[in-house]
Amino acid sequence: MITVDTRRFLADLDHLRTIGTYRTGVHRPTFGAEDMESRRWLLAEMDALGLDARMDGIGNLLGRHRGSGPRLLVGSHIETQDRAGWLDGALGVTAALALARAGLPVDVGVYADEEGHWGNMLGSRSLVGDLDDAEIDAARDRDGVPLRDALARAGLVGLPRMALEPGRYRGALEIHIEQGTQLERRDQRIGVVTGIVGLRAFLITFEGQQDHTGGTTMAERRDAALSAVRLLAAIDAEFPKVCGDHSVWTAGRIVVEPNQPAVIPGRCEVSFSFRDLSDAVLDRMEACLRALVRESDRRERCPATIEAVARLKPEPCDPGIVAAFEGAADALCPGAWRRMQSGALHDSQVLASRLPVGMLFVPSIGGISHHWTEDTTREDLELGCRVMAAAAERLLG
Amino acid sequence: MITVDTRRFLADLDHLRTIGTYRTGVHRPTFGAEDMESRRWLLAEMDALGLDARMDGIGNLLGRHRGSGPRLLVGSHIETQDRAGWLDGALGVTAALALARAGLPVDVGVYADEEGHWGNMLGSRSLVGDLDDAEIDAARDRDGVPLRDALARAGLVGLPRMALEPGRYRGALEIHIEQGTQLERRDQRIGVVTGIVGLRAFLITFEGQQDHTGGTTMAERRDAALSAVRLLAAIDAEFPKVCGDHSVWTAGRIVVEPNQPAVIPGRCEVSFSFRDLSDAVLDRMEACLRALVRESDRRERCPATIEAVARLKPEPCDPGIVAAFEGAADALCPGAWRRMQSGALHDSQVLASRLPVGMLFVPSIGGISHHWTEDTTREDLELGCRVMAAAAERLLG
Repeated sequence: MITVDTRRFLADLDHLRTIGTYRTGVHRPTFGAEDMESRRWLLAEMDALGLDARMDGIGNLLGRHRGSGPRLLVGSHIETQDRAGWLDGALGVTAALALARAGLPVDVGVYADEEGHWGNMLGSRSLVGDLDDAEIDAARDRDGVPLRDALARAGLVGLPRMALEPGRYRGALEIHIEQGTQLERRDQRIGVVTGIVGLRAFLITFEGQQDHTGGTTMAERRDAALSAVRLLAAIDAEFPKVCGDHSVWTAGRIVVEPNQPAVIPGRCEVSFSFRDLSDAVLDRMEACLRALVRESDRRERCPATIEAVARLKPEPCDPGIVAAFEGAADALCPGAWRRMQSGALHDSQVLASRLPVGMLFVPSIGGISHHWTEDTTREDLELGCRVMAAAAERLLG
Repeated sequence: MITVDTRRFLADLDHLRTIGTYRTGVHRPTFGAEDMESRRWLLAEMDALGLDARMDGIGNLLGRHRGSGPRLLVGSHIETQDRAGWLDGALGVTAALALARAGLPVDVGVYADEEGHWGNMLGSRSLVGDLDDAEIDAARDRDGVPLRDALARAGLVGLPRMALEPGRYRGALEIHIEQGTQLERRDQRIGVVTGIVGLRAFLITFEGQQDHTGGTTMAERRDAALSAVRLLAAIDAEFPKVCGDHSVWTAGRIVVEPNQPAVIPGRCEVSFSFRDLSDAVLDRMEACLRALVRESDRRERCPATIEAVARLKPEPCDPGIVAAFEGAADALCPGAWRRMQSGALHDSQVLASRLPVGMLFVPSIGGISHHWTEDTTREDLELGCRVMAAAAERLLG
């Protein structure tokens, strides 16, 4: 089995942690000074280890292996959320460097703005040809600063945008922190991702009649929150009959108006979403939800409306890559790994439209991410890097 | 049947409307300049029509009939909520004046601060001996001003507080706007109040675990809002089996934390209350509620706690007074009146601890009260005043 220099890998991670340090984490928003410093450092490292390294007009980096034969694309992102963790993104990039250093025929990819400071997966979408100039022209950050101005300040104006070279890769790999506690709760060290779930999100609104609770009989009331409760209870009863083994669903936001103890709720808004790895399951869940809302609207005194607010396609991972990860994990940490799906969005979900993809998770301590206390043990980081290398070797062999 | 000067009654109401006018309503908070002006005007009116009229140390007015024989106490309050309506309180006071003017042996009562600017039913509680000096010492308004300072500014320091004279009254009557739409919706003009409902209010809290909706399986979740939904659905199913004919129950306030679409609710607070005219029914409902919360706490993954936050005893109206109102309504507006309970709190509920009480409602246009647009047709006001007089005559005859 191939040997990886995990000490160097950890040293790379430690070095990146010094660029934009915030407490024990990192503040490195896309195209800011620290982000560009980290990109230039990565370019230099890729160059030093013999890759053909370039940055493109949207901030993507690609370090191309110069040899021939089968290759893999391995990478992640390097910018962070504001005052966030040292591993989210950087782990995948440094692991890719480590695989290249070990002599594996991999291209190192660093996909710009996965964290969405300026848009939605701009870098990986640009690579797969799913980002047009009009969107770049229109993009602004939360403060209203145009993306074009940020690209100019970052010195990226005039650089061409790169595209994935057709037929170049056997697939794309990414290692990432779990951002959940499924591994930690089971005392497991590696998660082999079987797919990145799709999401369908809805806003359901009930219109009632605001009234005093004392003076209005039950027969006269139009209690919008009660209609919402009845719908949510119906979902709670019916969704288990149509969902898949790993489906999740959540009413994360419930807004009652005027939300006063002695006033009958006149309006209620529910933000409801569900996720699964199968389009067919998502279709079944959506049909069930719409039928229940229709039934609520028909039965209840408070008219109910449903509006789709987000829709993300599920992306199953490539079975061959999953098998390679499983084989590698079985060899390196038998009994301490599991198959799991990714509930969060990653660049791999975008790359999946052009390439077979696979992802590997290492545990997040306490499930914390997008916060400066985000962490993973150094042993788990090293193991993750070694499983990546072993799986890559299997896929390329 | 006795004749009432309803033109004068409406003129009194119109005059009071000029003291603290706010748009089409009135702004007359307790012990403010306009409130005291209205009290002095009422004292002068009572005096002019031959009553023995006094103001006491908490702002109550009592205009005592000078004759002997059976008497009634008739009245309401004169202060208003901030920028509120012209009828809430003033209707009951001017109707009492009208009855006295018609020669009926009634004492006119004006109970201070029913609207609770400084405390909880201070005036009527003082009259029935249920207000001690320590509570007056401690009372503050919303701005923190001590009640003692307000009483001093209003010139009430040194005045003794009056108490109801034992055995003086056959009962206490009050006419009030409905503050609901039960009469209006049925095109009815008079509501004979059978009792003022009791209230029990609770705060129910569910403690869950805040997590990302993508990364947490259904099996791992502790969704506090879902536990709340299940409890509220259980209440919706079980309360009809234990409630009375006219019980009402409401979850008026639901607070989800952090209330974000993509985060599993970590905490949920529900403000739940119910009302009924029967203590036995209230006891049954409370036992049912507590059993359901206990069951939720036992079954669900989110511990549930319940805390009582308010408890008001129901006060059934006196059957003899109810019968007198019914007879009068039947004579003056056959088919256009109904028996109903009062869902809101009134001074009569306090007086009921010492006296047989009865209340009459006239319609509120659109059910609006505690707002400057509050209104009732002049015809309904006049009818209400005549029904009061006819009922008083029956009770005294």
